[in-house]
Amino acid sequence: VRAEIVAVGTELLLGQIADTNARWMSEQLAAAGIDVTNHQAVGDNLDRIVEALRLAAARADVVLVSGGLGPTEDDITRDAIAAFAGVPLVFHAELETMLREKFRRWSAIGAMPESNLRQAYVPEGARWIVPDRGTAPGLALRLDGIRLYAVPGVPDEMQEMIGGTIVPELRELAGGDVITSRILRCAGMGESAVAERLADLFTSSTNPTIAYLASMGEVKVRITAKAPSAAEAEALAEPVVAEVRARLGDVVFSADDESLEQAVLRLLGSTKRTLACAESLTGGGVGERLTAVPGASASFVGSSVVYTAEAKRRVLGVPDDVLAAGTVTQACALAMAIGARDLYGADVALSLTGAAGPEPHDGAAPGTIWVAIADTSGFTHARGFVSRGERDRVRRWAQQAGLDLVRRHLEGAPLPETSLPG
Amino acid sequence: VRAEIVAVGTELLLGQIADTNARWMSEQLAAAGIDVTNHQAVGDNLDRIVEALRLAAARADVVLVSGGLGPTEDDITRDAIAAFAGVPLVFHAELETMLREKFRRWSAIGAMPESNLRQAYVPEGARWIVPDRGTAPGLALRLDGIRLYAVPGVPDEMQEMIGGTIVPELRELAGGDVITSRILRCAGMGESAVAERLADLFTSSTNPTIAYLASMGEVKVRITAKAPSAAEAEALAEPVVAEVRARLGDVVFSADDESLEQAVLRLLGSTKRTLACAESLTGGGVGERLTAVPGASASFVGSSVVYTAEAKRRVLGVPDDVLAAGTVTQACALAMAIGARDLYGADVALSLTGAAGPEPHDGAAPGTIWVAIADTSGFTHARGFVSRGERDRVRRWAQQAGLDLVRRHLEGAPLPETSLPG
Repeated sequence: VRAEIVAVGTELLLGQIADTNARWMSEQLAAAGIDVTNHQAVGDNLDRIVEALRLAAARADVVLVSGGLGPTEDDITRDAIAAFAGVPLVFHAELETMLREKFRRWSAIGAMPESNLRQAYVPEGARWIVPDRGTAPGLALRLDGIRLYAVPGVPDEMQEMIGGTIVPELRELAGGDVITSRILRCAGMGESAVAERLADLFTSSTNPTIAYLASMGEVKVRITAKAPSAAEAEALAEPVVAEVRARLGDVVFSADDESLEQAVLRLLGSTKRTLACAESLTGGGVGERLTAVPGASASFVGSSVVYTAEAKRRVLGVPDDVLAAGTVTQACALAMAIGARDLYGADVALSLTGAAGPEPHDGAAPGTIWVAIADTSGFTHARGFVSRGERDRVRRWAQQAGLDLVRRHLEGAPLPETSLPG
Repeated sequence: VRAEIVAVGTELLLGQIADTNARWMSEQLAAAGIDVTNHQAVGDNLDRIVEALRLAAARADVVLVSGGLGPTEDDITRDAIAAFAGVPLVFHAELETMLREKFRRWSAIGAMPESNLRQAYVPEGARWIVPDRGTAPGLALRLDGIRLYAVPGVPDEMQEMIGGTIVPELRELAGGDVITSRILRCAGMGESAVAERLADLFTSSTNPTIAYLASMGEVKVRITAKAPSAAEAEALAEPVVAEVRARLGDVVFSADDESLEQAVLRLLGSTKRTLACAESLTGGGVGERLTAVPGASASFVGSSVVYTAEAKRRVLGVPDDVLAAGTVTQACALAMAIGARDLYGADVALSLTGAAGPEPHDGAAPGTIWVAIADTSGFTHARGFVSRGERDRVRRWAQQAGLDLVRRHLEGAPLPETSLPG
């Protein structure tokens, strides 16, 4: 089964938003064993939408359209589908009732503008998918051997229909084979070094297949198996997962596609320890990531964002002589970690300080980073290194290095040493 | 001049990454007066890339291809362009010299693998664009009245070539007209309410045009004018900008496309005040946003992330009786703001507490948020409200509401009141 995704919206062509819907839909379809061969994006223009639908229908079995189902005049996906199929739009009183009911229930959004009645029209012969989160019904149509679905462009409304209705229908259509992906996530080793260690597996293994994806401070190794049942696919994948883990060792922080912050919280929970942070260059980004995980408060107590030297002294008690020698130093990182551990009464503390750039900071070149940990046994460890790249990248690298230091400490794995000269 | 963007990469079709390059390129092209009519994405498959290029060349004047210029075997954009143009690939010794020189200079990336020599091949008749940040040369080709450009898929390498070479060439091609966009950013008013206040302008104004884009807790109003020179375009836009500002009043926090955190830092700078935060449900996200702005340390001193009740007591001195009555309350938000102000010695402090969900927290329903400010004059103000949506959305709404409270306080604008029942 081959699928194609068509995104509708002038805002995409103007670059006001990225097409994150296509990414999400593609990921879901791949997991369901559906090949996605093309993405298209077109503006709110009837002729161009029809042209895109014709092209997609000519080369795919399933066409998924997102966007253009809203209540305003520039929402014309309904009209384009009707034009493409050569059928009229038909008004459905049931949909009007549903719309009026939603507006009545969500009194905060006010009375229903009459323009919303556009959403009660459906191309003749099409089914609709009842919306839960939004007001726009999805559409489903079979035509000349292809299946065409249209969903709203609002991400959570799209996800509800793709995940709840469309993927289950397509999974059935794809029949037999199930695709299972296992994702091993790695920190502290570059993509080419990971690939080198797995080169022969990469070449020789066809089911499962191995793929790499590198992002800042992290490499994902994806092992994808295809089999008639999920259990058989998992059984195919398992020995390769085990072999990859054995070869990469403590570089792998998760075999279940956990983020680094999820892995840290899992390890804190299983070792019954609490974590506090002291953040300078990351400005709160480490706390933000940890608290994005529901239930983080079981292990993460807080973070002192101390952006100025004075704040480091006042909040964390970093001594004046340490501050005078520079805030982007091993001594300052260690004093910050110890200060946060004691201020919060945490079992382990992580500190991050550095020069995010673009200017040098307190005598340190842009990209210079120090991360340190301290625990209640009196153990401390600091690591200094230089990150290439611009401000965002430096801050992200610091987060990754800091979280990975905590992860390794909790796992009892070797801790990386300082690579700064001198 | 009409342009089309073709993204190459199987990782896009598998949903491993979103096509953020197409967004960035589209934004740059729109600003240069080039209409982008279509986006396509295809995998690393020679026939499909050639098919995509043919389609794009048939309907656009300019085709921009991103991705597939790397050194590995699945990087086949060079081959696809040669096949599309019906020309051979030609080896250029100058490119080999450049590649070897880059590897010598960046000793950290090791010796040059011979596979990198793929990057020294260029379709016959094409120019290359010398890379600064990466190793992959860009390509430029004129063919049958169209211009085709290929750039690497790595975002900063793509941006360097699009911004430095390609957009300037296309701007010249587009000739005469310059497009200027002014973006007014608004907080504290929904998209439909903004649109209602501007309805007649929206309908009557054709140059400049008015467009809206809503995101969480924010509405952008974009005013776009087209004229033979930048000065004339700006002169056309200016009266509409002034009229929109007059109608929306203190809802507009920036007329220069500043983010809310940039506006807050600007106002802190111009009033010579410092800011500290106390973050519970946002976990450091407000500090992270403020410190993403270079130079933030001139006004932002830090943030106490206090994720547990004990941390609120220990770090910020929130009294036991306040904590006993609940941490998602007006009293707790006020005590947190006062605590952060005094701990950091800041002129103004912002606090944020709430139940991010999915579970109720400390007796408060998911989505309940309190934000508060306190300054050194003894002034305090708290606002409680309920945000719809899931954890990420609730946390983002809290950030927006908190930053906007500080912004309004610094501007002397009216402060929003509590909308919580009881």
